[in-house]
Amino acid sequence: MTQRSMKIPKAIQNLIESFEKLPGIGPKTAQRLTFYLLHVPQGELDSFSNSVHNLKSGTIICSVCFAVDETDPCSICSDLNRDKSLICVVEEPLDVLALEKNGKYHGLYHVLHGKIDPLNNIGPDEIYIRQLLDRIMNHELGIMEVILATNPTMEGEATAMYIAKQLREQLTINKSQLTITRIGRGLPTGADLEYADELTLQRAMEGRREY
Amino acid sequence: MTQRSMKIPKAIQNLIESFEKLPGIGPKTAQRLTFYLLHVPQGELDSFSNSVHNLKSGTIICSVCFAVDETDPCSICSDLNRDKSLICVVEEPLDVLALEKNGKYHGLYHVLHGKIDPLNNIGPDEIYIRQLLDRIMNHELGIMEVILATNPTMEGEATAMYIAKQLREQLTINKSQLTITRIGRGLPTGADLEYADELTLQRAMEGRREY
Repeated sequence: MTQRSMKIPKAIQNLIESFEKLPGIGPKTAQRLTFYLLHVPQGELDSFSNSVHNLKSGTIICSVCFAVDETDPCSICSDLNRDKSLICVVEEPLDVLALEKNGKYHGLYHVLHGKIDPLNNIGPDEIYIRQLLDRIMNHELGIMEVILATNPTMEGEATAMYIAKQLREQLTINKSQLTITRIGRGLPTGADLEYADELTLQRAMEGRREY
Repeated sequence: MTQRSMKIPKAIQNLIESFEKLPGIGPKTAQRLTFYLLHVPQGELDSFSNSVHNLKSGTIICSVCFAVDETDPCSICSDLNRDKSLICVVEEPLDVLALEKNGKYHGLYHVLHGKIDPLNNIGPDEIYIRQLLDRIMNHELGIMEVILATNPTMEGEATAMYIAKQLREQLTINKSQLTITRIGRGLPTGADLEYADELTLQRAMEGRREY
């Protein structure tokens, strides 16, 4: 006489598994989210479901800068008021939105959709570096400055260094004028000198400016 | 001459908003999850989307114990090998799965789908307490023990106390035999006496057993 124990219904199991695939969501959180949704009206579930389904069909990757937008070329690339001599290179589409939110930058972007990350088998050819080089070399008006705004992580630094090296090699061939810059490094606003790590302090000293 | 700044595409904004509605997911996490899904193949998005859509149609709430399962009555209520004289009262369907995973409990359940929580306007009538009382009073075979396994939080304790009081009132009327128990309280496995809070220590002392 063995008792059956309750199994998780398939519909619930499926959703738990879908949630678990998302970054930063473990089995417990996936369960919690799924059981939370059980109490939500079907209409809200439908709108969630449609949002997931339509995510990619409702967006397009700009063929010029690879930002994610509703049109191609994107609203920034097609904006005549943007400074076309500036390109800011970022890792992800989200980085563009972060910089746009600020609203101070008025140049163009180039989204790499990743970073050079040998541990995860991502080399320079897996992200849009070649397209960036082509874009700079073929640009009619001439790009004056490339701002390397990849993240200040190990992989982001490696990516920035690789791009800078490639650009400098091509520059000597083309003899064109181009400034390559890296986003400022130092203490973030609100930080405490006492608790800053060594490298951040070093970069903050290196990056000091006249006051 | 004002520049346009990039707006978040509607399809992305919709999904961010859907994610934000989930408990424990803030605006930043919602953004991160959404942009992560942009890199995921459409097939996977479809399966995620379907899981959300079918969550409720693929599950049913048991009309006896209010657990979530694929059949009504649920697999536990309809299992002849279960001990029908025991009812374990829990707050949420997830609690049933937690206890079932352990596999040591062989009685029935009753899921309240909530707890008495006056601050959030949830009184005894908003959760399945009335149904529990009816179930116990009308049970043909006679229930011998009700285990109150609501969470050891303020609201869980209040809910357990309320149910116990209601049961005792009805018992005096019906003169039936029924033991009311509360799940054991004390130190969890792996805990450190030194770091346990006062109330847990007190409950651990109160709940001591012969060794």
